[in-house]
Formats: sequence, C-alpha cells, structure tokens
Amino acid sequence: MTSLVFRSQMTVEFGHCDPAGMVSPKRLFEYFDTGTWSLFEAALGIKRADFLTTFGILPLVDVRLNCRQAVKFGDHIEVASRVAAFRRSSFDVDHRISVDGALAVEGGETRVWAVRNKDDPGKIGAKTIPAEIIARFG
Amino acid sequence: MTSLVFRSQMTVEFGHCDPAGMVSPKRLFEYFDTGTWSLFEAALGIKRADFLTTFGILPLVDVRLNCRQAVKFGDHIEVASRVAAFRRSSFDVDHRISVDGALAVEGGETRVWAVRNKDDPGKIGAKTIPAEIIARFG
Amino acid sequence: MTSLVFRSQMTVEFGHCDPAGMVSPKRLFEYFDTGTWSLFEAALGIKRADFLTTFGILPLVDVRLNCRQAVKFGDHIEVASRVAAFRRSSFDVDHRISVDGALAVEGGETRVWAVRNKDDPGKIGAKTIPAEIIARFG
Amino acid sequence: MTSLVFRSQMTVEFGHCDPAGMVSPKRLFEYFDTGTWSLFEAALGIKRADFLTTFGILPLVDVRLNCRQAVKFGDHIEVASRVAAFRRSSFDVDHRISVDGALAVEGGETRVWAVRNKDDPGKIGAKTIPAEIIARFG
Repeated sequence: MTSLVFRSQMTVEFGHCDPAGMVSPKRLFEYFDTGTWSLFEAALGIKRADFLTTFGILPLVDVRLNCRQAVKFGDHIEVASRVAAFRRSSFDVDHRISVDGALAVEGGETRVWAVRNKDDPGKIGAKTIPAEIIARFG
Repeated sequence: MTSLVFRSQMTVEFGHCDPAGMVSPKRLFEYFDTGTWSLFEAALGIKRADFLTTFGILPLVDVRLNCRQAVKFGDHIEVASRVAAFRRSSFDVDHRISVDGALAVEGGETRVWAVRNKDDPGKIGAKTIPAEIIARFG
Repeated sequence: MTSLVFRSQMTVEFGHCDPAGMVSPKRLFEYFDTGTWSLFEAALGIKRADFLTTFGILPLVDVRLNCRQAVKFGDHIEVASRVAAFRRSSFDVDHRISVDGALAVEGGETRVWAVRNKDDPGKIGAKTIPAEIIARFG
Repeated sequence: MTSLVFRSQMTVEFGHCDPAGMVSPKRLFEYFDTGTWSLFEAALGIKRADFLTTFGILPLVDVRLNCRQAVKFGDHIEVASRVAAFRRSSFDVDHRISVDGALAVEGGETRVWAVRNKDDPGKIGAKTIPAEIIARFG
C-alpha cells in the first residue's frame, strides 16, 4: 500500500442522480476515474492531458464498488484515492467516498500500464512500470 | 442459477466512448443496469416504469466488471443478463457483453429487494423476495 | 438582466470527453444545469436538495449552446451563470464557459417555475414566480 | 431540406433519467448525436467507426432543443433525424423525438465538415462538403 492519497471534495449534482434521487452507480465510477487521474497528476507532476503522450494509457481491466450507504443529491462528499498495489505492469487503485466523514462507498480499479503500438494504434501493449514512477507514490 | 436470460443487441455509440475511443467503463455499468430492468420486465410481465410503484426499488449494493477485450466505438454488442442467485432479500445478476460472439466483458450486480418507508420516503427497507417472483425467473 | 452571477472553476475530466478528445456537448449542458442549481442555491440561501420540497421543480423547455472554441480534456474552465430574464412563470439563464479567460462556449436555458400536482404527481403546473424570489437575483 | 430521414425506436432507460423521473436534457442531446451518426452511416454506406478515418470529424458548433412534452422513464420513443441544410462547409441536422406518435422534443445541430491537420492533429480545419456527399441525402 502506497502512502500518497489524493482527496477531493465535491457536491453530488442533480445531473449525477437517477430517478431514485441517489447518485447513479455509473457516476460513482466516474468519480473513481477522476480520482485516479488526479492522483497520477499529483504524484508525477504532469498535467493529465499530457499523460497520454508522455507515458501512455491506463486501460481498466477490473473495477468494483460496494455501497454501504446511499449517496444522494446535494451530498457533500470526499473522494480519497490511493494506489493499493503495483505489480509488474498493472496496479490497483483504491477509492473511498465519504459523506460527512462517514464511509459511504468503497471500491477499486485494476489498470494496466500500457502504450499504443506506434505502427498500429489500435493495438495496445502492457509495459513494465518504471521503478521511478512507483517511487513517486510513496 | 436461474434459466431466464435476457439478451439485447446494440451499437456502441460515439457518445458512449472516451478519448481513447473505447466504451467508458461507466457506460458498461449502464448497459448492465438496462439489462437488469429488461430482465425483470420480461420475467414479471410488468412495464419498467410501473415497477417502482408495484414492487419497490432495487438499490445496488455491489457491482463489478472485468474487461477481457476492449469494446470500441461502432462495435455491435450483445448484452446477456441473468439472475445468478436469489437470497432472502437480495439477489445477484450476471451480465456478459460479447462482440461478434466473443465474450468481451463480464460482470455482476448485487441488489436489494426493497421498499420505501411510506411515512419517510427517504428510508428504504429490505423485504423478503416473494417465492412467486423468484419462480418467474425459471 | 439580473446582476447576480455564479462562477465556478473546474477541470474537464477524461470522463467528460468524447473520442475526439473534446468535451461532449451533452456534458456542457450538464455544466449549465449545475450552474443553475448553484446560482439558485446562492441566491435563495437554500440547499439544492431542499429546493424541490420548498419551491418545486424547474423543468427545462428550451436549451441551446454555441461553441466558439473547442474545450478539451484537462482544460481548466470557468462557468458563469446568470438569470437573463424573469417572466411571469418562466425564466432564462445564460451560461458562459471560458478557458484561460477566453469565452469558449455560450448558451442558455429557458425553464418553468413549476410545482407537481399534489393529487397527481405526474402532472406539473406552472406558477407565478414570487416577486421576492426575483428580488434575490439583484 | 433533404429527403432522407433516419428513424430509430428506443426505450427511455432508468439510467437516462434524472431525479424528477424525466429524461435528462443532456441525454436528449446524446440521442440527437446518435441520430446524426446513424443518418450518415445510412446515407454514405460507411460504418460509423470508419467515418473518422475516411472523411474526418463533424464538430458541433451549435445545438438547441425545445421540449413540448416531458419524456419519461419507460417511454418508447422514436428519434427522426434529417439534414435540414447543407452549406459550403457546415450543415444543420434536425431531430424530432416523438412518444406514441406525438412530437415531444424537437431540436437541431449545426456541424462543420472538418479534418484534422496532418502535421498538428490538435488543429482542425473546415473543408468544402463534396457535392457527391450531399447528393446521398436525397
């Protein structure tokens, strides 16, 4: 478990919610995705939009979430994201969403450290994650 | 594992995809959600919009997906949804997304069979799933 | 034209963008919607989640946008929202999105000041906008 | 006004709707976008995913919609899309959404016929729309 945690605060907006007045699960996954980009930007000191050209892409292979408590329209939430484990060419990011300090949702993503094939951009290949990248996450 | 499977065919649209040209993981979860609604409509013979007033709500507590193969803009996909297990007041739905017959994504949801408290609609309570409901899924 | 302007700053996230790497037009409309909720919360001093039970709903009847410049993944934007005109039971909200101080998108919404029929919540009726509400927007 | 009209039928899903139980305006714009891709695929006989490499991109510069009637969860809708006008390097697409045969939403998009600069893909340039392309829309 790395030590760098990225935390962001936000409001659950009307457009994030479903007819039950609760945040859509799909939007929770978008919060996770944004948490991962913010975490990598903070760790590597590179703007998210430059990540794709500097390093590569981070395709998701696995994602999961568990709701302990409903998250509703207007809730002020905190999303905390941290790399749980680095492996040779993949890694896990843990995300925790809390409402008023209480854990409401926890989940995780497994992503691959990958680059597009220069001759055939439709092909994506996994690469070894450089040790100096891993070191930036504490 | 119940025997009723709901299958739908659709195209991955431009608006479903991210800057990498692949379908957003969040959209895959929306496909799952739509699969669950369609499955319940088919099994119970009740329109999806009437489900909330006739039975109740089906809040998600757990959802997960695993990508075996990228799903891209313009792909023609099939989403197959089936209840994997019924428990007293919760159930699991399995979803499989295939592209040209090859399994590309598999995932699942755990949902609660629940109703809103009549005196306090913000409160949601789990209920026992009626045997006659379970029987409709084969 | 009222004088109260609500401004918020945000980042265009990966999940807001389409395969062309530009923010989806649909997401721009979500930014507008969030701007309207924030503006009403600021003007009326009532939390957005309490608005529906205190005042009613604000169904959109008309919405439009014009893109002068592409808004891209990673851009830091400002959304400025202001009521352009109040009429008896409807009003217009103007929204301007700028990137690094330059106007990139402008648009507007026309919404109705409405309440649900107590006996038939599916029916929505327009109501006269109270003068004291209008006064809060300056 | 061209004569080719693309019509598609679909269901308004739970995940398309907001806490008011109505389809999100942003989702209506996604229906429009899908209508445009389907129309061009039908007219030009080229798969939507190949459009970007064969012709170019179609950035939106203007989009608008007017709601005459609420579109709700579970409604079966038809989206009809047609090019209203071609100009030198831009064109308008009209979209009409009907519920049970009654017009519920109408709107339109203005798009540019454009290509990316080969040396600087971040730059997009408008091009003259070929007469043989226009002819395909009747």
